[in-house]
Amino acid sequence: MIVDVSKKILIVGLGLLGGSYARILKRFGFYISAITKEQSSIDYALDEGMIDEGTTELDHRMIGDADLVIFALYPHVFVEWVEQNQQLFKSGAIVTDVTGVKRSIVYKIQEILREDVEFIAAHPMAGREVSGVENSNDKMFSGANYIVTPTDKNTPEAIHTCLELGRLLGFSNVTILSPEEHDEMIGFLSQLTHCIAVTLMTCNDKENMEKFTGDSFRDLTRIARINDVMWSELFIENKDVLLNQMDMFMEKFKELKAMLEAEDIEGMRKMMRHSTERRALFDKK
Amino acid sequence: MIVDVSKKILIVGLGLLGGSYARILKRFGFYISAITKEQSSIDYALDEGMIDEGTTELDHRMIGDADLVIFALYPHVFVEWVEQNQQLFKSGAIVTDVTGVKRSIVYKIQEILREDVEFIAAHPMAGREVSGVENSNDKMFSGANYIVTPTDKNTPEAIHTCLELGRLLGFSNVTILSPEEHDEMIGFLSQLTHCIAVTLMTCNDKENMEKFTGDSFRDLTRIARINDVMWSELFIENKDVLLNQMDMFMEKFKELKAMLEAEDIEGMRKMMRHSTERRALFDKK
Repeated sequence: MIVDVSKKILIVGLGLLGGSYARILKRFGFYISAITKEQSSIDYALDEGMIDEGTTELDHRMIGDADLVIFALYPHVFVEWVEQNQQLFKSGAIVTDVTGVKRSIVYKIQEILREDVEFIAAHPMAGREVSGVENSNDKMFSGANYIVTPTDKNTPEAIHTCLELGRLLGFSNVTILSPEEHDEMIGFLSQLTHCIAVTLMTCNDKENMEKFTGDSFRDLTRIARINDVMWSELFIENKDVLLNQMDMFMEKFKELKAMLEAEDIEGMRKMMRHSTERRALFDKK
Repeated sequence: MIVDVSKKILIVGLGLLGGSYARILKRFGFYISAITKEQSSIDYALDEGMIDEGTTELDHRMIGDADLVIFALYPHVFVEWVEQNQQLFKSGAIVTDVTGVKRSIVYKIQEILREDVEFIAAHPMAGREVSGVENSNDKMFSGANYIVTPTDKNTPEAIHTCLELGRLLGFSNVTILSPEEHDEMIGFLSQLTHCIAVTLMTCNDKENMEKFTGDSFRDLTRIARINDVMWSELFIENKDVLLNQMDMFMEKFKELKAMLEAEDIEGMRKMMRHSTERRALFDKK
């Protein structure tokens, strides 16, 4: 479906991600419409030639025209939107999303959605410390991962469409995971790291530390500048996995602390060598 | 003393830091000699015009000639060197270092050192994941902190010399702290962050994670590639401070975990907003 640029794409939520989607997809010639909260975002996007039309209203014609609807909203807003407005979708439309948690979203949406509309979930693993359509850009996804999380309710055609969308958007890696595998992976690589960064940033309010900060501390706390509305919601939506992983981290941290207490220099060195070896796997290729 | 470029500087330990010192100071016209373990490091430095002479031996003449001796060695090697060879220093020489912990080094060295030689301690807060003289460079210290940690045994002249050395080396901030303030600060900003990075890197050996890694995880684990010999030693030399700070971090982490368990969304959001506010202080100016 995607390769056919005569199809119409509606983006709901024109922020950093939605905006970058619009910018990139418009270049391929698709007809792009957008629904978002702020008129200023629509004005900006029209001005930049990123969309063909946009509104802050629930425009029935615009929704009913769309062959592909991309939701770039907070998880609970997305679910509510579908609950309240799904009667407006065109029959045969494909719906996708950008939500950072999957188990709690995918099954719920597929459960409530009309039979003649298909939801295929995806997670573009890309973010910044900034937000808003004004910060969107067309290089946003270079080097990043796009993960499609189908269930047995999805058709091969919709999965294919979603994979192709990821490739069109310029993601370097486009992969399929189950919602469960996705949440396990994202809990560790993204949510646990945000928990750690926020903790490090708030556990010591001593003054004047910033005068002596080097790159290590800055790197570990870059993501401590955090969107509190979105992340608190993502944490709760993946609570069981994240709690386990927080425990796992604490167990290991206690091991290191016990070795330091005992001045077990060989034990610490062994852990550091393991760390060094394993980090090499994660270098940018 | 430093401004007088006729003075001779000896660097003991020609690695990443010692090499960068040599490169930069040579440009000012100082006579630079070096003692280090590997002949290949000497050959490289001579080739690059970074030093005037160098040896892998305990060259009595070279040591006896030096007005300023800079030790760029691991902590315990530095202490042992001074214990065994201090009779070779020129009378009136100033000795400084690059050691990343101060309380356990400064008082010990000042205690054992000859009366006619002065040790003024300093910590250049700069490092890389690479090592060796081949990776040294003359931009190494731009944007970085240089901290001088005098005690009441130090003369104003030696403190002044050491501060000026930091400025010549190109550090953006040159500051004075007590050894106690230094170790408290470095425990938090540098050692605790390394403990966290190593723990995160080793707490989950699940395979194929690297395929999905984004910038967050990479940033938090950049320093998980770690020199096990040096860091295990630094941790132990600052054990009391670091253990306290590990506890402080764990307390806060447990608070966050309790809030997630209770789905206390307001509590989590408050912590995240505090984190965001405090992180702004640490932005690069």
